[in-house]
Amino acid sequence: MGSVVDELERILAPGQVDAGEVALRRYAVDQAPVIDFQLPLAVVFPESVADVQAVVRACAGTGVAIVARGAGTGVSGGAHATKNCIVLSLERMDRILALNPDDETAVVEPGVVNAVLNDAAAAHGLMYAPDPASFRTSTIGGNVATNAGGLRCAKYGVTRDSVLAVDVVLADGSLIHTGHQTFKGVAGYDLTGLFVGSEGTLGIVVGVTVRLKYLPRDVHTVAAFYPDFRQAAAGVLAVGRARVQPAIMELLDGGTLAQLDDIHGSDLTARGRSLLLIQTDGFGAAAEAQVVRDVLLAGGAAVTTEASEEAERLVELRRHSRGVEVDDEYRVGEDVAVPRSRLVDYVAALDAMASDHGVHLKVVAHAGDGNLHPTFWIDRTGGSVDAVALKRLHRVLDESITAALAMGGTITGEHGVGQYKLRWLGQEQPEPVREIQRRIKELFDPEGILNPGKAI
Amino acid sequence: MGSVVDELERILAPGQVDAGEVALRRYAVDQAPVIDFQLPLAVVFPESVADVQAVVRACAGTGVAIVARGAGTGVSGGAHATKNCIVLSLERMDRILALNPDDETAVVEPGVVNAVLNDAAAAHGLMYAPDPASFRTSTIGGNVATNAGGLRCAKYGVTRDSVLAVDVVLADGSLIHTGHQTFKGVAGYDLTGLFVGSEGTLGIVVGVTVRLKYLPRDVHTVAAFYPDFRQAAAGVLAVGRARVQPAIMELLDGGTLAQLDDIHGSDLTARGRSLLLIQTDGFGAAAEAQVVRDVLLAGGAAVTTEASEEAERLVELRRHSRGVEVDDEYRVGEDVAVPRSRLVDYVAALDAMASDHGVHLKVVAHAGDGNLHPTFWIDRTGGSVDAVALKRLHRVLDESITAALAMGGTITGEHGVGQYKLRWLGQEQPEPVREIQRRIKELFDPEGILNPGKAI
Repeated sequence: MGSVVDELERILAPGQVDAGEVALRRYAVDQAPVIDFQLPLAVVFPESVADVQAVVRACAGTGVAIVARGAGTGVSGGAHATKNCIVLSLERMDRILALNPDDETAVVEPGVVNAVLNDAAAAHGLMYAPDPASFRTSTIGGNVATNAGGLRCAKYGVTRDSVLAVDVVLADGSLIHTGHQTFKGVAGYDLTGLFVGSEGTLGIVVGVTVRLKYLPRDVHTVAAFYPDFRQAAAGVLAVGRARVQPAIMELLDGGTLAQLDDIHGSDLTARGRSLLLIQTDGFGAAAEAQVVRDVLLAGGAAVTTEASEEAERLVELRRHSRGVEVDDEYRVGEDVAVPRSRLVDYVAALDAMASDHGVHLKVVAHAGDGNLHPTFWIDRTGGSVDAVALKRLHRVLDESITAALAMGGTITGEHGVGQYKLRWLGQEQPEPVREIQRRIKELFDPEGILNPGKAI
Repeated sequence: MGSVVDELERILAPGQVDAGEVALRRYAVDQAPVIDFQLPLAVVFPESVADVQAVVRACAGTGVAIVARGAGTGVSGGAHATKNCIVLSLERMDRILALNPDDETAVVEPGVVNAVLNDAAAAHGLMYAPDPASFRTSTIGGNVATNAGGLRCAKYGVTRDSVLAVDVVLADGSLIHTGHQTFKGVAGYDLTGLFVGSEGTLGIVVGVTVRLKYLPRDVHTVAAFYPDFRQAAAGVLAVGRARVQPAIMELLDGGTLAQLDDIHGSDLTARGRSLLLIQTDGFGAAAEAQVVRDVLLAGGAAVTTEASEEAERLVELRRHSRGVEVDDEYRVGEDVAVPRSRLVDYVAALDAMASDHGVHLKVVAHAGDGNLHPTFWIDRTGGSVDAVALKRLHRVLDESITAALAMGGTITGEHGVGQYKLRWLGQEQPEPVREIQRRIKELFDPEGILNPGKAI
């Protein structure tokens, strides 16, 4: 298999192929738990579409797989190296090729960092709406691969809703363009939608045309502390019933508040056992925030007064509520979504499970779209693997998935299936639906060299 | 081929299969120009998912094609009968199966009329956002088949953006469910997106789960008359530069105003040669409308004062600006979209073409998303076909498409390719992209019985 690496070194420029131990280790995994650690044969850094095409052609027919990678911030293992693969890091393809203020669109290479695109757009009063927690480091290409969500989705949509067109290198090295430069376009099948969220298993996205939205003129943030999670979740429904569409509606449980206090020295726990953070934006932001405050007060919350600086600081804290932790075998973050009306029931079920099995739990939720991130963990017992505790952890994880599905939910709201969630996919999608996806995969990638063992 | 009809009459209830001349003629075409008139063998009216499955199974293996049909309001010929087909009218499957106000979702059969769903949602302060001009008669199933747009798309998105899940009867009669009941969900490939807009060529959509949005609390409408179209189009960009996102932004040219005056006895033409209609909605509607007025006044418009009743009446007129006309061989409405910054250039190009070839032209545009509906027509010469005039008409049509594509546009923003626009699809999509779609079609429908000769 060394021959493919030799070939890549021959066709690419010096420094574009790294087979050194440091690089191999660094690029072997993303931020998800690892269930089958593999080192890649090499890490390859294309700098152009032609480079990507050359790499794909070099691998085709050799059995060497290609794992495309953005910033490696994924949390489902979509960018974990697999057996006999190269990792194709698109980080050097980081140019904003066009930014058209009147068209409200941009064309970018896949390695452009989300925040960099947003900074460039902000100069024109525009924004790229999808804002995963990783937006300061994650790339548009990675966001496209996972159809990333974020905090603002309930109002502004997920990545799919902002992607108009993609350039894709297919498994045979050919390049296609799908979609349209216009906001609307219905010519032919929605191939763009098929590539978005396909986690690099159908092709390598080498260019993305996105729609930009308007930077809101005004932003108001409301922080509401509650004595328990149940009342906070009821607040989410109350805001919905008032028919106010917040840009952000985040729900944090007591465990999350305690952790934030630990890290940042804040006093959140002293103020409540649950926190609902709501941000309204646009021309109606002030009026919407007032309705939100009234509704939440009526529901028993302690609500911040009209000055929203503190609440905004809390939103920033929330964005970092993953902290510096990376999931591992002792600590797993989930990404289920349930219909909004089931938020309360679902969190009650999680609490019961965690308590039954003696597993720690904290929960944050993008409550506006019913998307929950429970994190389960067990204590480390001095470095040695505690097989019994691990079994408890896995039992809770499985039960949390089963419960979400039973409530009409999904196993992944925005993180993607990757490698780690594959074990649960069959519970959500029956065999005929999975078989269709396998056949689509086969159609695009008959040799199975594009990120095998992921997504479907 | 009579045997399939006999079989259908045997397996369905009396009144569900109509092979009478009146029905065959009535269901042979939708509202698009007809280029290859065919009568179906029968019109079939399923009343349940099981009925649809039975019909598909009866046709499978016989070579009889199935043309699924909603209300027949399509304007691209997606529901035109083809040789040796039955028309499957889903109009009797018209139940709203669930409407969940707290989840802000609804589950409907495909025959539910768009306006009926909106009325039901309005009782809860909700709306189904996509609003094609045909919304009072067209069905959700038909809207899904064409990925229908409408007036509110620039702010609220197209049909795809409101569809969370679909139930689909496949070409072998089996039933699958794709998507999720939650707002977000990224498990597996986006099969839902693949079915939306596929015009009945990949499967028969028999159930749709949609996301509902909030009925706006406040609506303000501004009407701005301009001395010419160019200035009006500049107004569209000026509103964009003010970073106001209207719910509706419609642009009407002089020909359209004259026609509305003819039909409704209004005096629009006396007031300007072009009209820009802008509706803002939500909590910030009043403030947004004020910015819009200021910006348009500065651009030379005659703007209605703050009372917006008259402007709202104009929006209603606009919704009916197709009038009672149905396209035919002498009169063809287009549906191109161009990047917003090219609106002015594109309309200037249309004017020049129409004038060069002696063809009549009027234009309305969903200007917020650069989607134009030019209508070209030639005078009828006392019933006889004027081959020379027809040739002129077709030359203009072809040129209008070529010009839109040259500006980075698409041949269809929201109507679909159907049968009528197939001739231009190759100009927008190169052969490799079309071949992928053919192979996807083959994967879903190996016998080619689902609406053959349409969409791709």
